[in-house]
Amino acid sequence: MLAGNSIGKEFVVTSFGESHGKCVGVVIDGCPAGVPLFEKDIQTELDRRIPLQTKLVSARIEKDEIEILSGVFNGFTTGAPIAMLVENKEADSSDYEAIKDLPRPGHADYPARIKYGGFNDYLGGGRFSGRLTVALIMAGAVAKKLLGAFNVDILAYTKAIGNVKMDKSLSPADIRKRRNEISVRCPDLACAEAMEKAILKARKEGDSLGGIIECLALNVPAGVGEPLFDALDSDVAKILLAVPAVKGVEFGAGFAAAELKGSENNDAYRMKGGKVVALTNNAGGILGGLSSGMPIVVRVAVKPPSSIGKEQRTVNFSKMEDAKIKVRGRHDPCVVPKAVPVVEATVAIVLADHMIRAGLIPKVLKE
Amino acid sequence: MLAGNSIGKEFVVTSFGESHGKCVGVVIDGCPAGVPLFEKDIQTELDRRIPLQTKLVSARIEKDEIEILSGVFNGFTTGAPIAMLVENKEADSSDYEAIKDLPRPGHADYPARIKYGGFNDYLGGGRFSGRLTVALIMAGAVAKKLLGAFNVDILAYTKAIGNVKMDKSLSPADIRKRRNEISVRCPDLACAEAMEKAILKARKEGDSLGGIIECLALNVPAGVGEPLFDALDSDVAKILLAVPAVKGVEFGAGFAAAELKGSENNDAYRMKGGKVVALTNNAGGILGGLSSGMPIVVRVAVKPPSSIGKEQRTVNFSKMEDAKIKVRGRHDPCVVPKAVPVVEATVAIVLADHMIRAGLIPKVLKE
Amino acid sequence: MLAGNSIGKEFVVTSFGESHGKCVGVVIDGCPAGVPLFEKDIQTELDRRIPLQTKLVSARIEKDEIEILSGVFNGFTTGAPIAMLVENKEADSSDYEAIKDLPRPGHADYPARIKYGGFNDYLGGGRFSGRLTVALIMAGAVAKKLLGAFNVDILAYTKAIGNVKMDKSLSPADIRKRRNEISVRCPDLACAEAMEKAILKARKEGDSLGGIIECLALNVPAGVGEPLFDALDSDVAKILLAVPAVKGVEFGAGFAAAELKGSENNDAYRMKGGKVVALTNNAGGILGGLSSGMPIVVRVAVKPPSSIGKEQRTVNFSKMEDAKIKVRGRHDPCVVPKAVPVVEATVAIVLADHMIRAGLIPKVLKE
Amino acid sequence: MLAGNSIGKEFVVTSFGESHGKCVGVVIDGCPAGVPLFEKDIQTELDRRIPLQTKLVSARIEKDEIEILSGVFNGFTTGAPIAMLVENKEADSSDYEAIKDLPRPGHADYPARIKYGGFNDYLGGGRFSGRLTVALIMAGAVAKKLLGAFNVDILAYTKAIGNVKMDKSLSPADIRKRRNEISVRCPDLACAEAMEKAILKARKEGDSLGGIIECLALNVPAGVGEPLFDALDSDVAKILLAVPAVKGVEFGAGFAAAELKGSENNDAYRMKGGKVVALTNNAGGILGGLSSGMPIVVRVAVKPPSSIGKEQRTVNFSKMEDAKIKVRGRHDPCVVPKAVPVVEATVAIVLADHMIRAGLIPKVLKE
Repeated sequence: MLAGNSIGKEFVVTSFGESHGKCVGVVIDGCPAGVPLFEKDIQTELDRRIPLQTKLVSARIEKDEIEILSGVFNGFTTGAPIAMLVENKEADSSDYEAIKDLPRPGHADYPARIKYGGFNDYLGGGRFSGRLTVALIMAGAVAKKLLGAFNVDILAYTKAIGNVKMDKSLSPADIRKRRNEISVRCPDLACAEAMEKAILKARKEGDSLGGIIECLALNVPAGVGEPLFDALDSDVAKILLAVPAVKGVEFGAGFAAAELKGSENNDAYRMKGGKVVALTNNAGGILGGLSSGMPIVVRVAVKPPSSIGKEQRTVNFSKMEDAKIKVRGRHDPCVVPKAVPVVEATVAIVLADHMIRAGLIPKVLKE
Repeated sequence: MLAGNSIGKEFVVTSFGESHGKCVGVVIDGCPAGVPLFEKDIQTELDRRIPLQTKLVSARIEKDEIEILSGVFNGFTTGAPIAMLVENKEADSSDYEAIKDLPRPGHADYPARIKYGGFNDYLGGGRFSGRLTVALIMAGAVAKKLLGAFNVDILAYTKAIGNVKMDKSLSPADIRKRRNEISVRCPDLACAEAMEKAILKARKEGDSLGGIIECLALNVPAGVGEPLFDALDSDVAKILLAVPAVKGVEFGAGFAAAELKGSENNDAYRMKGGKVVALTNNAGGILGGLSSGMPIVVRVAVKPPSSIGKEQRTVNFSKMEDAKIKVRGRHDPCVVPKAVPVVEATVAIVLADHMIRAGLIPKVLKE
Repeated sequence: MLAGNSIGKEFVVTSFGESHGKCVGVVIDGCPAGVPLFEKDIQTELDRRIPLQTKLVSARIEKDEIEILSGVFNGFTTGAPIAMLVENKEADSSDYEAIKDLPRPGHADYPARIKYGGFNDYLGGGRFSGRLTVALIMAGAVAKKLLGAFNVDILAYTKAIGNVKMDKSLSPADIRKRRNEISVRCPDLACAEAMEKAILKARKEGDSLGGIIECLALNVPAGVGEPLFDALDSDVAKILLAVPAVKGVEFGAGFAAAELKGSENNDAYRMKGGKVVALTNNAGGILGGLSSGMPIVVRVAVKPPSSIGKEQRTVNFSKMEDAKIKVRGRHDPCVVPKAVPVVEATVAIVLADHMIRAGLIPKVLKE
Repeated sequence: MLAGNSIGKEFVVTSFGESHGKCVGVVIDGCPAGVPLFEKDIQTELDRRIPLQTKLVSARIEKDEIEILSGVFNGFTTGAPIAMLVENKEADSSDYEAIKDLPRPGHADYPARIKYGGFNDYLGGGRFSGRLTVALIMAGAVAKKLLGAFNVDILAYTKAIGNVKMDKSLSPADIRKRRNEISVRCPDLACAEAMEKAILKARKEGDSLGGIIECLALNVPAGVGEPLFDALDSDVAKILLAVPAVKGVEFGAGFAAAELKGSENNDAYRMKGGKVVALTNNAGGILGGLSSGMPIVVRVAVKPPSSIGKEQRTVNFSKMEDAKIKVRGRHDPCVVPKAVPVVEATVAIVLADHMIRAGLIPKVLKE
């Protein structure tokens, strides 16, 4: 079954389009009726993909304009599929013919060619391009609008770039306030400055850097998630690993939990203001695949971009011989800041899907 | 949609049963016809759940006997659903009535009660018990049998217990040879001994330990995985996070990749014996959601078991007041060794599903 | 994708088992928590498969005893998968070896052998046996229990056997009262007698008869169904055609609507007691794939059983030559009466699924 | 789950758009790579929706121009989602505001308003318009192109209009040759003339007519279909009932089989030229949910269009009182001829899906 371009069981997102094709688009089926929705809601999120400081990123500034094709009537969702797209205006395919037979290390070129028998659109990476995250952003913007009506709030930020790590713990309010002021989307200003320097250094060296993004989801009620297999953490991890460059996902204490004792890792309960609360949140807000009512905390490891200026070793597919490749074109030295809104979007998609599944969001929103 | 107990799109696994109910069972729909299959194939895998040295584990020794109910005829799969079950013989529910209203920290008790309105079977954790991994093992055993016919080999082992870590790098052959000789399923003997000691110490303290498991999948052809959303890493992560106690998943260099430069992290290609190979495997065998032909390498973080002998703080649901809990009964101080075959089983389930999806396994196996 | 043994998106029914294997079983995933459920609820429906007058049917009287394996706790559904099975006690496979290579006309023997490469269990027809309707009955019994809590009532009866047709129009109350008193499940007594005679005559001739079953679903609220593709009539038709021997499905006026004019066929609306009602029901309670609030009316054409005593022409698979076959064993001269509860069960399964989908049944039923 | 706008498990078709919105569109996920595909392939099928003789139909001539947005590269499908759309150019919504609160008898207006809480786009019937069949035609055109590569041929024609029925039996070759010459798409010329007259008469009376369409699928290999629930007839019926105005579906002898004896209805086998053939085809090419290798024969009952010029009784939603309605605008007196290519398209979609499922169409087509 080649069909893997849809995700979700209630809020079902289907992605289409290619990096250098006509457009990148998305269809959402299953969005409840009655959600107020305008193109500007989505445009706002799309604009967050445009780097705050262009010096940090590739020269390609995609002025993406979103168009809603269906599913919205008189300013509200109708319950019918919401199709949206963004045209690809600035794609420059000239660099790709030269490297058609040279799989770029770290990219999907090699396995994609084998899988699709050479029929896949390889320009700009085709379906495997980071450009496709535009579809996630669009769908995530709708999910956020829907979740917002139920007070759920999703908030991601840069936690590390290369070996520059943010250790300071900030409140969600502080994170929200500060992260958008800063190019790298790290809310710790001193740290952000060091990150920026590291990125510029890598750029200068024709190299690239990865990093870590943390995402919080606040006000998710307890009981969201459908064990065994559609556990909330399972579905969050699934979509995050579908984001290009993500190589690891962890919840709460995550890999560090492997070194804790049970007595340290367990989050004890107390009553507080008539409500059950956990005193710590090593679980990252998920127990047995269900939300616990505590903030959901997930972190992803983002690898350094594979497209670098340095010459690399590869093979020539047609000649079946060793070769060298120097990837031309516009490359980001670090995609972590750009990936922050993508991480938010994907977490929003999963939460919208699962809150409907849990019966916490109805099929029609009343005004 | 409460229905979250099935996974896979071609090799579809549906889990049923409870920890202290009549049985734990599984139905596989979509297994190709013509796979030789006997109950002993599954029994062998189930027996691996029984700890090699009982001193390391809970006193409950489950003598699980698998029964195939359907889908096998004259020693071969028929293409019809394969239903299998194991009866629960030794469940002792006496400890659970006392703590019915006291959610155990670290367990799903609290969110499950809210989600299911108190109707869920809470005995032994019900659907949230580690006991349910029996269903995964059964389905995984069938997946392994199927994958074996295509030379795919799956191999997991203990990489860390608490803060005892195995640093030595061993060949797959060495891992296979040694890991089953040793209680903790770590193929590095010196390390294994230290792990064992750490577990016994934790047990003595009424505490528990987590750890890290690494799983390799060898001989997976390039091109397996269905982007965007059913990326191979996405689906492997999804099922692994559905395994109780897993809190993080990473592929290849994983979280460490966040600290590498692109030039360090990219796996360069070379021709070798007429084949394209990568010189390193930081990608963990997956590029753009597709298998690259290199070994698939995935690691999971396993948290320390939540059931510990120590007294813990919790709340009383009925009275809505603070309370204390001491979890009685038989508890594992560390489930990592027991989880090793579970990790293999889940990875096998996903690979069987995806190799059929990729068209690499036909609907009928010819003899 | 061989996996076609599940149906439904919220109330998901997975069938397993074979005609002459160990058992016939079913797993329901997605049944809301809090539905009171006992084995006797299902047993009652299963018992309806046993013909009221054994002279009308095959000599094989299957004393099917249902066992609930999971998903029910303290008399209520838990929200976890409900697995149920019935053992096959009386299967006699002696007649099948002789005809292994001789595909029975009208049966699935020939295409099944090609599809599954000869690995399929052919005893008693294997997965293609009418015996498998036991799984539908079990799942349908749970669906009925769930629907009953929302006042939905499903009622099928025999409308025709061979060329004996019931023309009289009876009220649902009369249908319910009378249909179970009579062997053929036709509520028109005079008609029922003629049907019985026709069946006995066919039996005597070593032949068989088909017929028509009508099913009503009362009190289904308006708005159930998920266009475009999961239209309510689409999903009802889909499951009904999965019932062995069904060759046609029609709603309301059905095929007769093809001969009506729009002005005759349209159901005009009027207010009645503050409610919108339709004055006629040519639509059969479904408009644009949505329930209209009127009774749902569906009819199925049931073909005469393929297993007849008369000698028939066929081929020998192994020798690839013409052959003759006389199907021995116990055969029903007419399965229509036995299919009446099956039709009810399947309609119930679809309505349970769709009422949950429409948000009209919550995830947890409160007492 | 509102999400019902996708169909298929391998060849997955997702519909979007509204009758009077920006466009009608479709996404196909799972189409194998390597299928030669151009916009003209789809345009040809779309053009068949335009009536051959405009006197028979509504005045609205939709000059639909198809645009492929993604999934095709260098003239071949790539294995990525194929998105296509047609803009709505001529929609005239002026007639709809007046009847916003007056549900048109026979239309989905009433249940749709209840289901979507009044948020649904009601202009031109919104999602429930016959206009949406454009999406089916587009997807069906791709399916036909794919099936054509495997010699499968799909052929529908008008069998009856009102009470004018075609009794003559024609060969597939004759049907193909003649049906497109004639406005009503009935290959029996004398019959076609009578049908045309009947339609014109109905039109004059401000009334409408239904009819029956028969569809043949030739050269489908034996063994296609996935019992129990994804039986081939189940899935064909499901999609056909999702076509607006279809109220019944039957296979082979269909409802007439209910009156046959088993000895008459069973299709005996014989060897013919080294192949197994059936001497008759009462089964309509499907046994036990599997294709038998014989032609697949399915018929649908199409109701007369609900929009008629005559005044009809209805209610006023807002005032909750009785009302009258006269549906203005452009209406077809008979949609049967226009539905012929839609029936072909839907059958093609299901066959493409199921032939991939059966492993008879690979993931990549080699040239």
